[in-house]
Amino acid sequence: MNYDQATVKEILKQVQNEGRSALTASEGKQLCDAYGIPTPAQRVATSAQQAADLAKEIGFPVVLKVESSDILHKTDAGGVVTGLTSVSEVKRAFKSIKASAKAFNASARIVGVQVQQMVSGAHEVIVGGTTDPSFGKLVAFGLGGVLVEVMQDITFRLAPATGQQALAMLDDIAGAEILKGVRGAEGIDRQALAALIENLSHLMHDFPEISEMDLNPVMAGSDSATAVDVRIVTDFSPAEARYRPSQEEILTAMRRIMQPDAVAVIGASPEDGKIGNSVMKNLIDGGYQGAIYPINPRADEILGRTCYKSVLDIPGAVDIAIFCIPARFVAQVLGEVGEKQIAGAILIPSGFAEIGEDELQAEVLQVARDNNVRLMGPNIYGFYYTHKNLCATFCTPYDEKGQVALSSQSGGVGMAIIGFSRSSKMGVSAIVGLGNKSDIDEDDLLTFFEQDDNTQVVAMHVEDLKDGRAFAEVAERVSKKKPVVMLKAGRTALGAKAARSHTGALAGNDKVYDAVLRQSGVIRARNLNDMLEYARGLQILPTPKGENVVIVTGAGGSGVLLADACLDHGVQLMTMPDDLDAAFKEFIPPFGASGNPVDITGGEPPTTYRNTIELALTDERIHSLILGYWHTIITPPMVFATLLSEVVGEARQRGIDKPVVVSLVGDVEVEEACRMLTEHNILAYPYTTEKPVAVLGAKYRWARSAGLL
Amino acid sequence: MNYDQATVKEILKQVQNEGRSALTASEGKQLCDAYGIPTPAQRVATSAQQAADLAKEIGFPVVLKVESSDILHKTDAGGVVTGLTSVSEVKRAFKSIKASAKAFNASARIVGVQVQQMVSGAHEVIVGGTTDPSFGKLVAFGLGGVLVEVMQDITFRLAPATGQQALAMLDDIAGAEILKGVRGAEGIDRQALAALIENLSHLMHDFPEISEMDLNPVMAGSDSATAVDVRIVTDFSPAEARYRPSQEEILTAMRRIMQPDAVAVIGASPEDGKIGNSVMKNLIDGGYQGAIYPINPRADEILGRTCYKSVLDIPGAVDIAIFCIPARFVAQVLGEVGEKQIAGAILIPSGFAEIGEDELQAEVLQVARDNNVRLMGPNIYGFYYTHKNLCATFCTPYDEKGQVALSSQSGGVGMAIIGFSRSSKMGVSAIVGLGNKSDIDEDDLLTFFEQDDNTQVVAMHVEDLKDGRAFAEVAERVSKKKPVVMLKAGRTALGAKAARSHTGALAGNDKVYDAVLRQSGVIRARNLNDMLEYARGLQILPTPKGENVVIVTGAGGSGVLLADACLDHGVQLMTMPDDLDAAFKEFIPPFGASGNPVDITGGEPPTTYRNTIELALTDERIHSLILGYWHTIITPPMVFATLLSEVVGEARQRGIDKPVVVSLVGDVEVEEACRMLTEHNILAYPYTTEKPVAVLGAKYRWARSAGLL
Repeated sequence: MNYDQATVKEILKQVQNEGRSALTASEGKQLCDAYGIPTPAQRVATSAQQAADLAKEIGFPVVLKVESSDILHKTDAGGVVTGLTSVSEVKRAFKSIKASAKAFNASARIVGVQVQQMVSGAHEVIVGGTTDPSFGKLVAFGLGGVLVEVMQDITFRLAPATGQQALAMLDDIAGAEILKGVRGAEGIDRQALAALIENLSHLMHDFPEISEMDLNPVMAGSDSATAVDVRIVTDFSPAEARYRPSQEEILTAMRRIMQPDAVAVIGASPEDGKIGNSVMKNLIDGGYQGAIYPINPRADEILGRTCYKSVLDIPGAVDIAIFCIPARFVAQVLGEVGEKQIAGAILIPSGFAEIGEDELQAEVLQVARDNNVRLMGPNIYGFYYTHKNLCATFCTPYDEKGQVALSSQSGGVGMAIIGFSRSSKMGVSAIVGLGNKSDIDEDDLLTFFEQDDNTQVVAMHVEDLKDGRAFAEVAERVSKKKPVVMLKAGRTALGAKAARSHTGALAGNDKVYDAVLRQSGVIRARNLNDMLEYARGLQILPTPKGENVVIVTGAGGSGVLLADACLDHGVQLMTMPDDLDAAFKEFIPPFGASGNPVDITGGEPPTTYRNTIELALTDERIHSLILGYWHTIITPPMVFATLLSEVVGEARQRGIDKPVVVSLVGDVEVEEACRMLTEHNILAYPYTTEKPVAVLGAKYRWARSAGLL
Repeated sequence: MNYDQATVKEILKQVQNEGRSALTASEGKQLCDAYGIPTPAQRVATSAQQAADLAKEIGFPVVLKVESSDILHKTDAGGVVTGLTSVSEVKRAFKSIKASAKAFNASARIVGVQVQQMVSGAHEVIVGGTTDPSFGKLVAFGLGGVLVEVMQDITFRLAPATGQQALAMLDDIAGAEILKGVRGAEGIDRQALAALIENLSHLMHDFPEISEMDLNPVMAGSDSATAVDVRIVTDFSPAEARYRPSQEEILTAMRRIMQPDAVAVIGASPEDGKIGNSVMKNLIDGGYQGAIYPINPRADEILGRTCYKSVLDIPGAVDIAIFCIPARFVAQVLGEVGEKQIAGAILIPSGFAEIGEDELQAEVLQVARDNNVRLMGPNIYGFYYTHKNLCATFCTPYDEKGQVALSSQSGGVGMAIIGFSRSSKMGVSAIVGLGNKSDIDEDDLLTFFEQDDNTQVVAMHVEDLKDGRAFAEVAERVSKKKPVVMLKAGRTALGAKAARSHTGALAGNDKVYDAVLRQSGVIRARNLNDMLEYARGLQILPTPKGENVVIVTGAGGSGVLLADACLDHGVQLMTMPDDLDAAFKEFIPPFGASGNPVDITGGEPPTTYRNTIELALTDERIHSLILGYWHTIITPPMVFATLLSEVVGEARQRGIDKPVVVSLVGDVEVEEACRMLTEHNILAYPYTTEKPVAVLGAKYRWARSAGLL
């Protein structure tokens, strides 16, 4: 589509010149015309007689609306009269609108009254645009006015949106079915509405000074989509430019930071209990094989390592400097770090923006930028990169190697990651504290993890994305290759700023994150434990080859609950083919239930579990397996765990690697069985029918959005 | 309100006599008139001229609708034309309706065409009634046609509903705000709409032969509520009468069953591994102090207890007989059990309805009824009543005494209850297997637990409520005194039966359980683990005295996540009064955040935790406390756990007993800290910010619905 940018530029210039921050309705219409957004025929009348003449020209019925950039919510001002079918009605409406508008706001400049073709017989929807401090320009879509407000049934995409994305938005809302035509109503023209959304998203994108936009309502009919009312708000103050190094620059620095060959510890200390001592110990005890250079002007040696007064005194090259000194000394030392061409400064100290010392943090960042040093933190526990045996942190060491990389903005969550990982034996590649995120943030990390062969799953705890758009762009690319899980904290605190449009007000909530993260293929975890379990489980579970999931259970009761959990987590139970059903029946008692779940019944010996599980693993039509084990005397927990480990192990040897998740119900011995299964890389949980399915569901969500299913 | 039952009776009789199962629109209107349900002025016309005359009489605009009991969905048949404003339009519409209806269904008996006053300028809602196999008559309410279908935004109550309940329904739906008037729209007349709902619910209740009813739409205006279209479906086949012993009868039997003084074991066995042997061992090893009578014709003594050939040979009275014999022998022995005046038979054996042997189960039930014996099961693990040291089960024994009574319909879930209880040291009063529920079901159990001083919390796993109405009635009473938690399994399987109305179709889903359980004050658990955690937590947490909840956290990151969880679980964060804010500030570093959460920051010593927690416990304006602990070197996990146990212990001694829940993030030592806190009766969880708040939320849900807040 060719957009008429020149016209838009001219109108916006006039708005700016007149010191206005909102467009009149006819200016709005001109912008729509320039960007292919259909609006009803309309003209502005300045007298009742002219309104009547225009109405005849446009054709009845018509709507009259006050035309004034000082009155944004026209309905509230009595500035709208609809359904006018005659000259006399039009004249009367003209006068009443003028009177109401004056009464509403005596100082409003009233240009006239718009006479508009009345569009009807269609669905009312809202399409809008807004400017998010993190994500930038967003396009929004929802059902008609009252509904979008009360039900909050609205979805967002980054602007500009493609036609494909715009179409997907139509299906994203809860009321999507309504637009397809329910109970005899005609479905809408989806292409027309999607095109309107796409065009608005380009308008928002091409002109950053358009801060908010409402097309409300858009009448979506069976052969058209028409924006009946257009409201456009502008903000001509230029947005601050974001610091965006190139991908190559990011990678060069991040590789040296995450996998350093030499580490300096600024403020290394021989004194037990000091952070500079804990970091040294963790580096050494963790088994880091690179060079370790303690920096301390008052020591010659710390923990057996030669100590230097300054990084400038170190003979060889250094990749990272871990800061263990008070905040006020950081900037000064950072200059030397830059001079030494150290790639990254790990700023453990607190005392920066988190306690209101924004200026100090800005100063440190400026020094870093001037010296080409990337900053991690400040106000962090440090980071771990296990495949280098690197514990660059004052916390407890961690060395269980695996393929999950985790990051947290909060130290508390970082400690939960470490405790959970140790307790559940989750192998990790990296754990990174991002703290105040003065510089390095999630998209830098993602860019590194994308090409890090030691990392196959990324999980991030985030309180705010400083540059949501950059993150979304990187995540969309990375999540196609590796699952990216996010726990977005702070669902309530947003949206305090006053907004001047519906779309703006509605954007001030968690739905923006929800929609953009989904668009980027990020798997959202609802809470801390989910993030941890997803991280652990996504690593263990192979990618399913299809949507067909079968439940095999010894407890009918578990089967029902597992099926419920499938519904909750978007896991699709396979409709059992007759021959497969018959094959299962061969192995289970006549009163057992085949179908899906396959209920082998409670009194069965280990062979029944073995036979049915083997069948499910072998048959190619089945893509994933959910097992419900019931503790009985005939098949005790450890017997089950042993046979399952064997069966799955044998299948893996034959090249069959389907996702298998297990729920165990029984007395406390099932906990031991879970531990054994975990050791055999089989995801198993006691006393819950929910968690195994939730984790499988997360894997499916990822596989679908990565286009693997 | 006085209802004109006679008119309704007469009309229904005529419908029955004519062999119809649906009422015509004018019959429907008459029923509405008789029950005070407003409908628009309307008359039936049999000619176009008559239609025009009636329209003039009623006043324009009018609606014309085909009148035929053979055409239920009039719109689909082209049988409705709205907005007719002149005689000529009415005449044309009359003809087109007749033609369309004939084309739609040539054999339909068309009585005529209704001319109806057109009600407008109001909100379209749906009010309906349906007959649920378990709950009986239900009344439903939701927003207008398309919305109720697509958004499934509908709520239910048992019929008859009180005016108060009907009013509450208006707030129950997601779109509730719409009815209050949004963006300049007028709010509706809530009393009028509630009265209409209440009246419909009485109509459904008074005439069981009305199986389904749709008032769709009801136009809810600012001063009225009018049922524009009425559809009534009947079913004259009489419903089966339910067996409902009196409360006194239930109690007399259940007391003897749950707290027996003498127990017979039918099929007691000396042979290891037999169920009749396991039960004997569990009774003896469990420490049961009452009389134990093994019954086995081929033994003199089992495990040191004198054996009898039949219960009739036992010298003293016996309260329960535990059946450990094959299904086919049960009925015969049950006769003797009745003769011996034993109150209850615990039917462990399987082989009944669960494998399709419905007749055998019915036969056994008949023998039981004839002999005044209550049946638990069949197909169960038995039951535990810890305060009598009674393990009447073949499963592992359990003896941790406490005040939670649990029941499960499934044996697998029963084993999960036992394992979880043992693992988390949850004290229980009873664990009961209900299995096939041939007789004793949840409302019998609830009736017993209501008056059982050893039980303060009830948690039930339910797959189906055989008599949902009886359960709801008992639960509504009991839940006022003791929390009742339910895990309702099988959210997907419902609703297979074809329904002839909107309301009927919409009732075939989980929303009915959701609404009725809420109406009954039952706390619904979404999954197995939630049920178990709620049961455990509700017992430990005291009842809060108000809604003001404060978060005190050492980790800012946990604070944000805990606040998110509060939003998810309906826990209300207190707006901190200035003086209290200042008081907290005294104890925390200047850069810590007061307000709520109170962020004491991570580097603080134990005294800071102590001071802030003491303040929160002492100040009477704070009603509940959520703690976020962060593992640091300065305040290690066990130091925190010890100080918290002390502070809470001291407060309890001073008579202050507020709910306190704790989230601990840190390395694996936090698990030990959680165990210690649990021993001190403080609810604490590692690696999760969700669970402690979820459990607190469950306590609040209960306290609110029990009227304690």
